[in-house]
Amino acid sequence: MDPRFSLNQITTRAWSLPEAVAGCAEAGVEWIGLWRDKVAQIGADEAARLLKEYGVRVSSLCRGGFFTGVTPEGDPVDGVAQTREAIDEAAQLGAEVLVLVVGGISGGDLAGSRQRVADAVGELAPYAGERGVRLGLEPLHPMQCAERSVLSTVDQAVRMAEEHPEETVGVIVDEFHVWWDPRIEESIAAAAGRIAGFHVCDQLVPLPDPLLGRALPGDGPIDHRHLRACVEAAGYTGPIEVEVFNAELWQRPGAEVLAETIRAFETYVT
Amino acid sequence: MDPRFSLNQITTRAWSLPEAVAGCAEAGVEWIGLWRDKVAQIGADEAARLLKEYGVRVSSLCRGGFFTGVTPEGDPVDGVAQTREAIDEAAQLGAEVLVLVVGGISGGDLAGSRQRVADAVGELAPYAGERGVRLGLEPLHPMQCAERSVLSTVDQAVRMAEEHPEETVGVIVDEFHVWWDPRIEESIAAAAGRIAGFHVCDQLVPLPDPLLGRALPGDGPIDHRHLRACVEAAGYTGPIEVEVFNAELWQRPGAEVLAETIRAFETYVT
Repeated sequence: MDPRFSLNQITTRAWSLPEAVAGCAEAGVEWIGLWRDKVAQIGADEAARLLKEYGVRVSSLCRGGFFTGVTPEGDPVDGVAQTREAIDEAAQLGAEVLVLVVGGISGGDLAGSRQRVADAVGELAPYAGERGVRLGLEPLHPMQCAERSVLSTVDQAVRMAEEHPEETVGVIVDEFHVWWDPRIEESIAAAAGRIAGFHVCDQLVPLPDPLLGRALPGDGPIDHRHLRACVEAAGYTGPIEVEVFNAELWQRPGAEVLAETIRAFETYVT
Repeated sequence: MDPRFSLNQITTRAWSLPEAVAGCAEAGVEWIGLWRDKVAQIGADEAARLLKEYGVRVSSLCRGGFFTGVTPEGDPVDGVAQTREAIDEAAQLGAEVLVLVVGGISGGDLAGSRQRVADAVGELAPYAGERGVRLGLEPLHPMQCAERSVLSTVDQAVRMAEEHPEETVGVIVDEFHVWWDPRIEESIAAAAGRIAGFHVCDQLVPLPDPLLGRALPGDGPIDHRHLRACVEAAGYTGPIEVEVFNAELWQRPGAEVLAETIRAFETYVT
């Protein structure tokens, strides 16, 4: 198995964190991407203990963000305060990076919302830097701009990250969100030194839903080897997460899904 | 009423072409955007006669394209041949522009599919130029990249159009498709002289569906006056179509929908 393979635990959603960590160890998987709601079910101390016991490392923690003050459901949220907590948790778990979903449009003001995001990253970067946590700005698919992320392209994320030290603020390249971008090759090249994560999956065609339209690599139009070559040419040598939001996959047992995920990765990404 | 208002007839889908043309004349609307399936129901001769009788002009004809050889449903199609027919029809109807939806990915090859589109435009541009028809390259929302349009941004459309005379190949700026683009302002500025149409509508939040996620202006996050100012600063002074794909709107009587569309336009776009 490619030692860079990482299971983002949303892919095996039926599994608890202890099940996912044990399942990775069982399958020889060295990396896992964790979600905060799964960590909360057992507490960060116990999660850190399990990771050490099984020898599994954390490629990323999902997630901080929502800096524009509203959740996707329209409820108020203090994204900066919550992200401080997430930074502490990432440090405790030894996560390589904290993924940021920056938040959607607030008050009907797209430009103002983008500025709020830039301001929040400016406020949090020193806090993260002091704790040795790298923030990963993740551009989300334009269909999620209104309610989830006013950060939509790698180019835009790189320009925002460049205001900060590269070891503190990086960019997550998630294929699902950016594969269609006519400037993706040059944008990834410009992200050299800034790439804090590479997430792979495929897109269902036609898209059934903006959130659950993902599939395992090989089941859609994305050229994984091409995009992998781009991030590697830009110097990224870290773990590669497979992160699939898929209602059908989520119904199936975790071990079966992990085995199929590894096969898809070896066939289409490696 | 703003004399630049144009009704894209998909908005009043319950109306036939004769009903839509008469409805526009009745409401004092000077422009209409036509669809080929509606034209086919009565024939282009009769459509041209009705337009003349009622004094309504055609802002655009939808549509040519599908140059990558497959329909959104995956069936084979000769997009170049069909677009030649559409060019003839546009000339017959006196349409300002023929809208092109260029087609999705063929054979899993995104770069190759984009090249097929560029080649097709190169083949058709002289044919259109000889008939006085302007081709309008319309970038579609990235969520429609796989099956409908490998052309996803205004920037990309402008670069493709620039290979040809500006009176023959232009770019359609449709808010629904491009409002989220972090480089939209500079991309529209770079399209100066190339803008062949400006289509307005809003986006439903959350998106219920990639195709039917549109709403009347004012019912979503799009800043219409800002984008209108951008296209005007780039020199566009032509008709402004309101084009709404919305299942609920389509159930209602055409006259009622047109009246509401005009109100939305006057409130949020003018």
